[in-house]
Amino acid sequence: MPVVVTDIKRADAEAAASLAEFGVATVHEAQGRIGLMHQRLRPIYKGAAISGTAVTCTLPPGDNWMIHVAAEQCQPGDILVAATIAEAHSGYFGDLLGTVLQARGVRGLIIDAGCRDIADLEKLGFPVWSRSVCAHGTVKETLGDVNVPVSCGDAIVNPGDVIVADDDGVVVVPRGTEAAVRAAAQARIDKEEANRARYVAGELGLDIYNMRERLKAKGLTYITQADWENGA
Amino acid sequence: MPVVVTDIKRADAEAAASLAEFGVATVHEAQGRIGLMHQRLRPIYKGAAISGTAVTCTLPPGDNWMIHVAAEQCQPGDILVAATIAEAHSGYFGDLLGTVLQARGVRGLIIDAGCRDIADLEKLGFPVWSRSVCAHGTVKETLGDVNVPVSCGDAIVNPGDVIVADDDGVVVVPRGTEAAVRAAAQARIDKEEANRARYVAGELGLDIYNMRERLKAKGLTYITQADWENGA
Amino acid sequence: MPVVVTDIKRADAEAAASLAEFGVATVHEAQGRIGLMHQRLRPIYKGAAISGTAVTCTLPPGDNWMIHVAAEQCQPGDILVAATIAEAHSGYFGDLLGTVLQARGVRGLIIDAGCRDIADLEKLGFPVWSRSVCAHGTVKETLGDVNVPVSCGDAIVNPGDVIVADDDGVVVVPRGTEAAVRAAAQARIDKEEANRARYVAGELGLDIYNMRERLKAKGLTYITQADWENGA
Amino acid sequence: MPVVVTDIKRADAEAAASLAEFGVATVHEAQGRIGLMHQRLRPIYKGAAISGTAVTCTLPPGDNWMIHVAAEQCQPGDILVAATIAEAHSGYFGDLLGTVLQARGVRGLIIDAGCRDIADLEKLGFPVWSRSVCAHGTVKETLGDVNVPVSCGDAIVNPGDVIVADDDGVVVVPRGTEAAVRAAAQARIDKEEANRARYVAGELGLDIYNMRERLKAKGLTYITQADWENGA
Amino acid sequence: MPVVVTDIKRADAEAAASLAEFGVATVHEAQGRIGLMHQRLRPIYKGAAISGTAVTCTLPPGDNWMIHVAAEQCQPGDILVAATIAEAHSGYFGDLLGTVLQARGVRGLIIDAGCRDIADLEKLGFPVWSRSVCAHGTVKETLGDVNVPVSCGDAIVNPGDVIVADDDGVVVVPRGTEAAVRAAAQARIDKEEANRARYVAGELGLDIYNMRERLKAKGLTYITQADWENGA
Amino acid sequence: MPVVVTDIKRADAEAAASLAEFGVATVHEAQGRIGLMHQRLRPIYKGAAISGTAVTCTLPPGDNWMIHVAAEQCQPGDILVAATIAEAHSGYFGDLLGTVLQARGVRGLIIDAGCRDIADLEKLGFPVWSRSVCAHGTVKETLGDVNVPVSCGDAIVNPGDVIVADDDGVVVVPRGTEAAVRAAAQARIDKEEANRARYVAGELGLDIYNMRERLKAKGLTYITQADWENGA
Repeated sequence: MPVVVTDIKRADAEAAASLAEFGVATVHEAQGRIGLMHQRLRPIYKGAAISGTAVTCTLPPGDNWMIHVAAEQCQPGDILVAATIAEAHSGYFGDLLGTVLQARGVRGLIIDAGCRDIADLEKLGFPVWSRSVCAHGTVKETLGDVNVPVSCGDAIVNPGDVIVADDDGVVVVPRGTEAAVRAAAQARIDKEEANRARYVAGELGLDIYNMRERLKAKGLTYITQADWENGA
Repeated sequence: MPVVVTDIKRADAEAAASLAEFGVATVHEAQGRIGLMHQRLRPIYKGAAISGTAVTCTLPPGDNWMIHVAAEQCQPGDILVAATIAEAHSGYFGDLLGTVLQARGVRGLIIDAGCRDIADLEKLGFPVWSRSVCAHGTVKETLGDVNVPVSCGDAIVNPGDVIVADDDGVVVVPRGTEAAVRAAAQARIDKEEANRARYVAGELGLDIYNMRERLKAKGLTYITQADWENGA
Repeated sequence: MPVVVTDIKRADAEAAASLAEFGVATVHEAQGRIGLMHQRLRPIYKGAAISGTAVTCTLPPGDNWMIHVAAEQCQPGDILVAATIAEAHSGYFGDLLGTVLQARGVRGLIIDAGCRDIADLEKLGFPVWSRSVCAHGTVKETLGDVNVPVSCGDAIVNPGDVIVADDDGVVVVPRGTEAAVRAAAQARIDKEEANRARYVAGELGLDIYNMRERLKAKGLTYITQADWENGA
Repeated sequence: MPVVVTDIKRADAEAAASLAEFGVATVHEAQGRIGLMHQRLRPIYKGAAISGTAVTCTLPPGDNWMIHVAAEQCQPGDILVAATIAEAHSGYFGDLLGTVLQARGVRGLIIDAGCRDIADLEKLGFPVWSRSVCAHGTVKETLGDVNVPVSCGDAIVNPGDVIVADDDGVVVVPRGTEAAVRAAAQARIDKEEANRARYVAGELGLDIYNMRERLKAKGLTYITQADWENGA
Repeated sequence: MPVVVTDIKRADAEAAASLAEFGVATVHEAQGRIGLMHQRLRPIYKGAAISGTAVTCTLPPGDNWMIHVAAEQCQPGDILVAATIAEAHSGYFGDLLGTVLQARGVRGLIIDAGCRDIADLEKLGFPVWSRSVCAHGTVKETLGDVNVPVSCGDAIVNPGDVIVADDDGVVVVPRGTEAAVRAAAQARIDKEEANRARYVAGELGLDIYNMRERLKAKGLTYITQADWENGA
Repeated sequence: MPVVVTDIKRADAEAAASLAEFGVATVHEAQGRIGLMHQRLRPIYKGAAISGTAVTCTLPPGDNWMIHVAAEQCQPGDILVAATIAEAHSGYFGDLLGTVLQARGVRGLIIDAGCRDIADLEKLGFPVWSRSVCAHGTVKETLGDVNVPVSCGDAIVNPGDVIVADDDGVVVVPRGTEAAVRAAAQARIDKEEANRARYVAGELGLDIYNMRERLKAKGLTYITQADWENGA
């Protein structure tokens, strides 16, 4: 019973778009260190940084049919999230499909499998985060689902969630939390900026965060090389 | 009985050279999706795209002697394909060997093992597709073969076959099929260009390729979010 | 009994700094092919080439507290070497810590775990060689050691040893050998330069290194394609 | 806001228990080839085959505190599913925790991380499917969640779902479908048994499933070795 | 143009069958250390040791149709070698197909992909060497080839070659060399047995193989701990 | 300057031998969670549990010469630790070398590379912990060191240290600490036994270790499914 869910609710478009500027690491921290995809998903070129709302699909091994089906469900501001149901490394996606998605206003693709035509996709300016780069083509024989919850890169993605992706990886922000996460991310950035100035001035985290006492309480001992060699 | 076969037959030089412009993904498709090397072989720098005729050799673990032997068998327009007989990751190849091969007109190296001096090789403009980047040096103690059929990156390469390599990976075109593959690649490009224009204009693969009926026949169902949550 | 050793002896600063220009592959050769870290350690951006004296620390899984402790032990010209005691891939290091270390004159970080904020670290010009890129944050709960001998990337690093790192990887030069290694590296470069000219002129390693006789003695046979097909 | 959900709804206990006898491969087929965990999850000893209802938890890197918390939520007939939020390989689970869970009637553990004391766990008869075997201990400092939806082994597990695990791996059967899946699995077994008798008698799948015509239509050609060598 | 070659020439049946008793390591040595498959291919259960003549096929990702086609080409004494054309880990083979092959007298399967029903296959006594164990089912949509040369586990297999497989892995013996390899293997076993008696009596390889002089010539130095610590 | 250090100091033989009974996980805990080798080192057969004093050696890629040299330095009660200087997977060790070492009273081998003849080694009762199983043979051309400090499996081993190995992996106990570690391991076992009885009786870690208050202080919240679904 493969299905295409046609009228998913999306996270707030403006908030979704705004998370890209904070970056994956900050957003991940801001929402309590959940929702990060596995580091096996890497960008096909450096420097892209996007955020948007998720349209999801599942892919059988070596079969990219559902990407065509999912394309129709995409709107401007979306990011397509393509999960697999068994590990495979074929090139499910190339520059033609990148053209299709870009024409619909899609901001990028997250795929837990292979991608090809990476030089052309970079020229096109359509970023992809993938598990591998592989030119092996796929078939169009077996169905999957579109816009159901998926497990992609070890993270659960519900259709309409926010995806943030940059050189550090990919993180999922659950729909409904995007505004709160944005606020928390801004607060974190503000705090970091304050600390950065102190860091640049040569202060240490040991002092900025008052770590010395707790380190001592845990048992950390400072000794000389001579004492260490004598078996301290 | 290690051997060096000295008078291999090469694929047509002009056809071999011409395949680079089509790219690995297109050539792989054009010849029926065979001959692609495993995605573990990656370029040491981005943007190189070459094709040429294969000179082959086999390498014992941690021993690069046969690359020196193979160099002498290379002619302008060749690409050296170095297979291993057991997994190892030393740096079998560096900028000096790159200089040797470049002086002979060799267009690049495909090696199912490690490569080093990658910054210098990029400066030299000698591209390498390798399994790893590793500075560990090799010895010159054990023989292998030159210009025998090899298994490199999970693909069979016969001496004189055509190799095509770019950012998407490496593909082998059997000698004798290079002209037919070129024609098929050109036909594929022509067709893709026609479709690309439709894609740019916003048409979907679902319509361009008439997929809707077949999807329906396979059982794909479009439902609303509400119906899906109710257990459709 | 976690300890911080506070007065380690460092290799000669000038010699330590000078090794970067030779590069990892040459230094590794010059010291007899020992001390190379595993190729799983890769630079987060291309083109950085550094050398300096090692400050070491050990990191529990998902805990980066000791990087803060180690920062205080760093001096201008140092490179921080962060080993783990169990495989983990969180992002132990980001641009704030990069700012801290840069402010202290540290030249880079070698970490056998994950790194994040890689775009910002590149902007900052603070190079990192890491096992993975991962945005997942770490905690500050468990102690490790600073300036004890560590196993990082399958190599032993003693505090005060010299670290050399570039696009080819990372190599450790034991303290006390840095001057001799520099001399050996220079000798190697001189010899290579002489050979390079001969290579550019089209000479083969077979002749430059007088390999032909030894190859023949080992049993290498040159045959024709026809003979090979007939079962030679 | 880490939470423990205390009153989850479980799949039908009797149906859940009954799925073990069909095995992972059959259950996976019977529900339409969804819900299989990644093959990186392997049993710590051969021959265990269990099924039961899922209690879920998430684990920070190197921290097994939530397993203690989850234990209290377990009932006889449950299987504990421990997901991680970042890749780590410590030994989160050993024979003492196995004793705790066994005392509560738990049938086994699925953990997307490391396990230790595997010889003792085999003696105890408490089966574990894990990503790695690693003796490195964990801390108890950071919270996670219990009985929320998790992504474990690339599959989504909701609390109360049915887990089936044997030497072939682990599959998740969504709560509410367990009876239908049991019926479909039984039907599949019945059909397979009928076919098995024909297979034992020497019949081929080509004939049992009437594949010959479709193969021919797709273009499969039978040729002789001589014709093949002549370039057919 | 997918083909099934129907009348391949097989290696001598009796010699092919006899190689199993020597084991993979000895056969591999006896033929000059060529033809070993990559160590990623592991037996699904311990203790099986087989040899026989190869029937080959190629498998598209997630598609096992050609195994059914290949089954018909198998004769008693054969071993089926199933190569893939792109990395995939589905369970292409299970106990029903094991029953089919066993009914035809096939001795085992070598597959560079996944296998399932491993407990049932062990009960059946049908050994498989595979890349992974995975329950994910496959489709029957795309053709491959039967009895063409394939690259399986990084080794070239021609139809009719001899395959030897045991707990140490899998090795390919080219058709036509099986008798010579058997003789060489027997000679090696005889020599090893003589040496084994000396080893059991406490003699060292250093003396049996007269290594001491060559080690000294290469520069090996025996020193005391005290001298080593003083920087020898 | 490859060296063989001939008169290493060994840990106390009786204490070294006694650690096996505690097992790797307990010993690792008893010494403060240091010294564990990476989980990539796995036993070639289940059920072996040994401890003894380390003789060390380093191996060039694909070259096992130094194992022969190291054998002579071994005494009854030793365990040979073979490190590599670059990743390689050949079969450096087989049953003949197992016979040599067993004749000298060596208890087992730890090797960060490949092993072969594993069925024969199991029959012989000579246990090996290795990175891979691979039949590919090695050469004897290049020197390494014997009885110098090595990095094996990401852990530093000094000659004379104690090695403990079982189904959970391998741990290194520094020479001089073996008696203290034994005492700590015994204390840990005693405490675990007391807790085990309470676990068997159905008590929870939450109560035995008084975790409830600290969990609450960290913010763990118990909620109902209904509240969770309403967004708690």
